[in-house]
Amino acid sequence: MPTPPFEKTEYESRLRRVRARMEAAGIDLLLLADPANMNYLTGYDGWSFYVPQLVAVPCQGNEDPLWLGRAMDRAQAPLTSWLPDARVIGYPESYVQRSDRHPMDWIADHLKGRGWDGRRIGTETDVYYFSPKALERLRAGLPNAEFVDADLLVNWVRAVKSPAEIACMREAASLVGGAMRAAFDAIEPGVRQCDAIARIYAAQIAGEAGFAGDITGLCPLIMSGRAAAAPHPMWTDDRFERDQTTAIELGAARRHYHASLARTLHVGRPPQRLMDTAKIVEEGLEAALAAMRPGVEAGAVEAAWRRVLDRHGLKKESRIGYSIGLGYPPDWGEHTISLRPGDATVLEPCNTFHIILGMWMEGWGMETSETVLITEQGAECLTRFPRGVHVKD
Amino acid sequence: MPTPPFEKTEYESRLRRVRARMEAAGIDLLLLADPANMNYLTGYDGWSFYVPQLVAVPCQGNEDPLWLGRAMDRAQAPLTSWLPDARVIGYPESYVQRSDRHPMDWIADHLKGRGWDGRRIGTETDVYYFSPKALERLRAGLPNAEFVDADLLVNWVRAVKSPAEIACMREAASLVGGAMRAAFDAIEPGVRQCDAIARIYAAQIAGEAGFAGDITGLCPLIMSGRAAAAPHPMWTDDRFERDQTTAIELGAARRHYHASLARTLHVGRPPQRLMDTAKIVEEGLEAALAAMRPGVEAGAVEAAWRRVLDRHGLKKESRIGYSIGLGYPPDWGEHTISLRPGDATVLEPCNTFHIILGMWMEGWGMETSETVLITEQGAECLTRFPRGVHVKD
Repeated sequence: MPTPPFEKTEYESRLRRVRARMEAAGIDLLLLADPANMNYLTGYDGWSFYVPQLVAVPCQGNEDPLWLGRAMDRAQAPLTSWLPDARVIGYPESYVQRSDRHPMDWIADHLKGRGWDGRRIGTETDVYYFSPKALERLRAGLPNAEFVDADLLVNWVRAVKSPAEIACMREAASLVGGAMRAAFDAIEPGVRQCDAIARIYAAQIAGEAGFAGDITGLCPLIMSGRAAAAPHPMWTDDRFERDQTTAIELGAARRHYHASLARTLHVGRPPQRLMDTAKIVEEGLEAALAAMRPGVEAGAVEAAWRRVLDRHGLKKESRIGYSIGLGYPPDWGEHTISLRPGDATVLEPCNTFHIILGMWMEGWGMETSETVLITEQGAECLTRFPRGVHVKD
Repeated sequence: MPTPPFEKTEYESRLRRVRARMEAAGIDLLLLADPANMNYLTGYDGWSFYVPQLVAVPCQGNEDPLWLGRAMDRAQAPLTSWLPDARVIGYPESYVQRSDRHPMDWIADHLKGRGWDGRRIGTETDVYYFSPKALERLRAGLPNAEFVDADLLVNWVRAVKSPAEIACMREAASLVGGAMRAAFDAIEPGVRQCDAIARIYAAQIAGEAGFAGDITGLCPLIMSGRAAAAPHPMWTDDRFERDQTTAIELGAARRHYHASLARTLHVGRPPQRLMDTAKIVEEGLEAALAAMRPGVEAGAVEAAWRRVLDRHGLKKESRIGYSIGLGYPPDWGEHTISLRPGDATVLEPCNTFHIILGMWMEGWGMETSETVLITEQGAECLTRFPRGVHVKD
């Protein structure tokens, strides 16, 4: 595996685009806690986000970002990041999970020593790995800084993928197709959900494609039996049964770039209501895909889908898709563009979406999805798995 | 699978102990965002923590907690929780990932409608799934409430396990032993890390034990080759080589209760420095285990270990263990008791620890660990996997 996964020029281009947004927002220093954003700009990778850590990006002077984390986790930086050693800073072990101090006390002090107190500092405010206490301690330790909300600043840059990122997503799409195939092969009456999950993980991670898959933002979701109408159930050791519909939503990740895929399987003779709904969903999916092209608003894609549903008297309240790409647990969505009414974001070439059509009815459900790349010509499905309800007898 | 996994009396006992702490702290309403704490009190389980959600616990009047989350995720509640339907409240889809509103606006409004504005409200402040913006919006929407820091309040209750919880951890220990065996079986020169990881996942989840394993707080960690001295590397498609030391740290979870285990494997003829270090670590582990009994301070356990290291001229800066149990990604630690200098917590029967001895040296490393239950008699290792460096030729 190269260290880091992309060319230095790719990281430079990412930094340039982030700095342009920082400049527009008047931000001198950007503090990032989302591990996907940290990875995006520096390559840093590791399961160290369960303790506080940041990447600090100075706006001016082309100064390299700083990685600031737990001292022991500096060891992951030379394996994964292009950052020079001197820009990889560790806080002492004595700051880990203590009630009388916080890693952000140390980090604030370090940033003060570098002259950042009194400057305008942007932080993320609604990410998973940056807590209210973390922000409070940073503020307390940098009393002369002006803190501004820079939530999603990097995520919006990430919404347009480079050719190298798209290549990763194509590899992920190949893994996720194999994982869905493994699920379909595994699901038989009497087989436990966890046995299918084990086969799915093996295909996601080791695959047949000749390269490793990474851990996915969401775990594989099996909507079957008692959980058939629940969108985010954890797997169990319940056994699959004959005459049961199972919806499966899963992702695969290559260098933490995701492709996600949902399909529905029926073991036995499928009920008419399932086949009827699936046909409408398929028609709606085609309408949405046909609407996806540069220059179109995100909301218009959902409207194309909804027109089909309306015609058939069906309803779906939740959004039908979102920007997807680089991610760590617990999510693979980028929290920027949503395919739903009122989202006025104009689609651009190299946006990537997970368009997910989950129909959770009274006591049963079905799902279908694709991971989609916007090209000049329109929507290209990166995932290539046969559509429609799969029937197994 | 029963719904929920434990008897109602178990949840009542947990609530009683949490309410006693709330009363002592003068907290009228406790808002929990840590999915482990939400699960602990209500049984609620699902991969829905990637959007904001809370469990609200009223202190007085024996009123059932409220689950407050995304409307579609109410569907997981009847599958996993003992909460009555009327206490499972969903915010509309139109609040999900929008820049102009936040789920906590809706939740604050809902709590105000129930009369909680003007009361004393405790929140977690340093958990993974409760952001600075979430707290800010709650405060803004409940302007007459007094917000107090209730971080770790429930975690401290969780530090003492019930017999039913210990039974889950024993099951997890059986899964994790199988997963370590799978790793050792898989690792051969020429095999990719991801192939070993696939085997590990299969054993963690489907196992041979007759019950499903759940997703683990940390992903499996393989410290090998270039990453031999890194404590938290992500797996790659690098191939194992002859004459290579590999440390493996992994967990297994049963009903989200963890047992974790680390061991070290050498393929080929092990170097003397590895065997010498392993012998000292083994002696230190025995000393630490011998020191673990009710009435002893956590810091004294580390001191017993350190005396052995000092005698041999070795050093380890990081803590040697922490309270372990119920957890969701990204952690299985409970963030309460640490086995390190200065931690004055007095060990009690039914505390559970992951005692982890990771020695990351210059360019190489080794690890050994056990998941340990404190009994009246002392330390009982729940994990039962042969110790020492495993050598494979």
